[in-house]
Amino acid sequence: MYNFRTDLALERRDIFKKNNNLDEIDGVETENKEIDENLKVSKVKITNQNGEQAIGKPIGDYITIDIKKLRIAEEDEIQKSAEVLSTELKEVINKHVQSKDDVLVVGLGNMYVTPDSLGPKVINDIDVTRHIIKYLPQYIDENARPVSAISPGVLGTTGIETLEILEGIVNNIKPKLLIVIDALASRSIERISSTIQISDTGIVPGAGVGNTRKELSQRTLNIPVVAIGIPTVVESAVLVNDCLDLFIEKLQNEAKSNDYLNKLKDQDNYEEIKEALNPNDYNIIVTPKEIDELIDNMSSIVARGINMSL
Amino acid sequence: MYNFRTDLALERRDIFKKNNNLDEIDGVETENKEIDENLKVSKVKITNQNGEQAIGKPIGDYITIDIKKLRIAEEDEIQKSAEVLSTELKEVINKHVQSKDDVLVVGLGNMYVTPDSLGPKVINDIDVTRHIIKYLPQYIDENARPVSAISPGVLGTTGIETLEILEGIVNNIKPKLLIVIDALASRSIERISSTIQISDTGIVPGAGVGNTRKELSQRTLNIPVVAIGIPTVVESAVLVNDCLDLFIEKLQNEAKSNDYLNKLKDQDNYEEIKEALNPNDYNIIVTPKEIDELIDNMSSIVARGINMSL
Amino acid sequence: MYNFRTDLALERRDIFKKNNNLDEIDGVETENKEIDENLKVSKVKITNQNGEQAIGKPIGDYITIDIKKLRIAEEDEIQKSAEVLSTELKEVINKHVQSKDDVLVVGLGNMYVTPDSLGPKVINDIDVTRHIIKYLPQYIDENARPVSAISPGVLGTTGIETLEILEGIVNNIKPKLLIVIDALASRSIERISSTIQISDTGIVPGAGVGNTRKELSQRTLNIPVVAIGIPTVVESAVLVNDCLDLFIEKLQNEAKSNDYLNKLKDQDNYEEIKEALNPNDYNIIVTPKEIDELIDNMSSIVARGINMSL
Amino acid sequence: MYNFRTDLALERRDIFKKNNNLDEIDGVETENKEIDENLKVSKVKITNQNGEQAIGKPIGDYITIDIKKLRIAEEDEIQKSAEVLSTELKEVINKHVQSKDDVLVVGLGNMYVTPDSLGPKVINDIDVTRHIIKYLPQYIDENARPVSAISPGVLGTTGIETLEILEGIVNNIKPKLLIVIDALASRSIERISSTIQISDTGIVPGAGVGNTRKELSQRTLNIPVVAIGIPTVVESAVLVNDCLDLFIEKLQNEAKSNDYLNKLKDQDNYEEIKEALNPNDYNIIVTPKEIDELIDNMSSIVARGINMSL
Repeated sequence: MYNFRTDLALERRDIFKKNNNLDEIDGVETENKEIDENLKVSKVKITNQNGEQAIGKPIGDYITIDIKKLRIAEEDEIQKSAEVLSTELKEVINKHVQSKDDVLVVGLGNMYVTPDSLGPKVINDIDVTRHIIKYLPQYIDENARPVSAISPGVLGTTGIETLEILEGIVNNIKPKLLIVIDALASRSIERISSTIQISDTGIVPGAGVGNTRKELSQRTLNIPVVAIGIPTVVESAVLVNDCLDLFIEKLQNEAKSNDYLNKLKDQDNYEEIKEALNPNDYNIIVTPKEIDELIDNMSSIVARGINMSL
Repeated sequence: MYNFRTDLALERRDIFKKNNNLDEIDGVETENKEIDENLKVSKVKITNQNGEQAIGKPIGDYITIDIKKLRIAEEDEIQKSAEVLSTELKEVINKHVQSKDDVLVVGLGNMYVTPDSLGPKVINDIDVTRHIIKYLPQYIDENARPVSAISPGVLGTTGIETLEILEGIVNNIKPKLLIVIDALASRSIERISSTIQISDTGIVPGAGVGNTRKELSQRTLNIPVVAIGIPTVVESAVLVNDCLDLFIEKLQNEAKSNDYLNKLKDQDNYEEIKEALNPNDYNIIVTPKEIDELIDNMSSIVARGINMSL
Repeated sequence: MYNFRTDLALERRDIFKKNNNLDEIDGVETENKEIDENLKVSKVKITNQNGEQAIGKPIGDYITIDIKKLRIAEEDEIQKSAEVLSTELKEVINKHVQSKDDVLVVGLGNMYVTPDSLGPKVINDIDVTRHIIKYLPQYIDENARPVSAISPGVLGTTGIETLEILEGIVNNIKPKLLIVIDALASRSIERISSTIQISDTGIVPGAGVGNTRKELSQRTLNIPVVAIGIPTVVESAVLVNDCLDLFIEKLQNEAKSNDYLNKLKDQDNYEEIKEALNPNDYNIIVTPKEIDELIDNMSSIVARGINMSL
Repeated sequence: MYNFRTDLALERRDIFKKNNNLDEIDGVETENKEIDENLKVSKVKITNQNGEQAIGKPIGDYITIDIKKLRIAEEDEIQKSAEVLSTELKEVINKHVQSKDDVLVVGLGNMYVTPDSLGPKVINDIDVTRHIIKYLPQYIDENARPVSAISPGVLGTTGIETLEILEGIVNNIKPKLLIVIDALASRSIERISSTIQISDTGIVPGAGVGNTRKELSQRTLNIPVVAIGIPTVVESAVLVNDCLDLFIEKLQNEAKSNDYLNKLKDQDNYEEIKEALNPNDYNIIVTPKEIDELIDNMSSIVARGINMSL
């Protein structure tokens, strides 16, 4: 499989089409909706094996919500985005469970590392009801859905695979559906903490930050897993690699027929660049300076969107 | 059982002795050590059923480390306190497990509520090794002990009992010992975030903040549970009740033989005061204004103490 | 002057009336407005010297906005509270300056101490315009008012009196009006981070947290000073003293004619209690456990209220 | 002047030497000291006008302290780094003032934006004495130096130029020396929050984060200004531009005599790249993911270093 270096189905489709000079891909359908000038919803449907291989993601729907100017968003824009998320999410959830079925919301990430703190922040704002239904049923509407929520932490600070933690909890409290919030990798700086991808085909935690972990999905957990993924960083090697590609393209356009450059373009300089850019084992990332504010706004949207849909 | 309104065995012993005019309690032994002018270690040993009933805690050792002037502590005082904690902790741990046995450290509390954030902060600084031993054994000393760490959150934000979360994880990753960091109730303002109690008889999460939850102990989890408890708040009703007692005592001393006052003193005004002080269902607490700094210093001590002892 | 131990004119009026068995005070008028079940506005007008002496505050208007259940407030309740604040604030500001006059907003307090962080948090959300009007006038409406904002810090961490810092800045940038956000002392736990007092008679920083500093007012700074004060803590000695008073009252009601108790009641136990409660020079406070959340909600209200009124 | 896109005299010297194929620069002397394997001190002395023009910085000494592996630094390494900083700083301070002269420490930056929060964090840990010497002289050694500290905020949130704020304060409290902590621009990712530059030739705030402001120096404030600068981010356009240069070099080495490429190399692609990388007016930065931890460690070092030297 081609290394797309993005988890967004939308970006993968564009890259695949461009690299293969295609107008459309067999097994991949797209639909776009513009809610207003700052809010756009796109659906990528992967419908057959060919689409699966092209995009490198399982058959299913991948909904992308793009929110422009989120950093300076006013309250009403945040509320509107949350409502759009809620509408899309409700549709996905209702495919898998009944209205009173138990749901567990999982926020991946590390609360003490700013660009990685979105998941735990969302969990803090989820309206949990499971304990009220269990211990104080008289205080809650009898049609309320049991909702619980957890931030399991990251392998580097827990020493335990996220899958191992969730397996234990899922076996013990037996929810009917998991909603998992995670960081994604994206190719576009514009999408950092400004785009939401919803899918129901599971998730590989940490993919967005370069540490692939064991898959969380129906296959590994035996219940449906709805993933809400948000790009929070762009890896610096990706950025430079993309710029080099653009640059070589420019050289080719201007110098014409240059075998040497063609060869360079074909080869993937990513690993080489990555090594050069990562001194001291740091995890170098590209992020807007306003990341704290972006994360706060996005975490309001996701928490409200989930609360409204449950 | 008498309602001591403190989880510190040391304070309970003092209250019991005073209330019953005893010089010593059968089944309760005490030992004191002064490390330096700011650092004191006391051991309360409960040795038989009589001691158990008097103190309201199971047979076992309860070690209290008191650190004075922690708020303005310099680095070397913090390091010294961590070393004292480590010495005491090592002794307790070695009673239960071998040097290479798997240990899981659990930090109770809510990271987003300042006086309740100690547990999660400590977890962030634990040197976890389990994943390295499992996935990259070549990078670690072959005698290293597998250590993992988790902050399960609190019932109010997860909707799941801490015991339910830990049961699942313990069954799945099978540690041989649990170290649990939790907030305790204390009667003394001086002890807020300045005292550490170590015991190996389990813990009832949230006792320190007025929300008793299911016990975490060998009985419920089938492995030994070492508890590290730190008082972080004093309930305001406790404070006022204690002041009233002192005040009535003063009245009695001065007015002598006053049947009416005697009656007042015997009755417990706690519940009444509690109700008066808790408008709007807030959880009113008494805390030093410098609580942020105290929590930071104490969390360094506990994390280092645990790291050195494992 | 009687030591009210509250900075709220409203509470002082009530205490004075009760202590002197008055139905009304000459020179003090009150007006109440109920916006909805959770939102109430009261105006205390001090109209002459007698009122001034009774309440211990200069002639002027003191507007109090009480917001119930702020901790669990939804977005629309926060917005409504901000609008009420803005209406009242606009009226006070318009008494002193023209619509294009330069205003400097000052947030007192220490951002690193949770119950003291309200002022700096508000400053972070003020829409400042002074630099745009000065350097990029083409990007802003020509009728825009120059607004600037500063958090000068607290004496304990700066070593400089707030008045000294502000004098320098005021002399240098010459605003026409100061809006100062500060913590106040209150007698009521219910009002912690849930009440706003607006006045135009200046402010004594730190009064709310027991460290009286030099006055900020027209007298010391030569420009009008509008104060927005929010109770953020109750001193524990105040709490206990109030409880003792209630308790002695109860004793008196039941035991009747007790000279000894009468004497106790007359004497003020505050200083004695204060000493007993303040070990180690900590600043012991009483606060809701949910203070982080209360401060966040209140800081949104104040920032929006100021932004709308400027 | 050449646009170095770094504020570190050391990096500028290297770039100038490389671009001009020089072994040494007239008017620029260097001295290196290796304290241990993780700690290195370099001094760049600019001694005449030629050096001034080459490096683009005024005649004076520029001391650089490089600390390796700061993210995982243990307490003793932090303490050692603070001592090295203190030694160098003391020497610079003593050139300008006497041991009892009043010093004001200024922490530039925005506490609410992680990569910009170093200055305010350091200020919070400075041992201020000015108010004690002024109000409680009996509590302090009579030889103590008056030290005060302030975080004036940034133009974007205050609407006031840092110079305007400091002018006012300096005129009012009349310190004899300013120590200013600021973020710097660097070309090297390795230096982010791991390098300290000390100089006594003043500072231009915000230079490190792309928003040049009015100079703070003896010339503008009439007292000596010692600057402590720490690189906290690398601009993404700088990173990509540097990579392109390396890449073109590689093309040239391999393809030889390519006029077209030579031309490309000569032209500066920075502005073009900058525009392409900055969608939505975000300030895109390159930073280690561990920036929160790096800032915490560096802020300890700087605060301790300053405290020891004053």
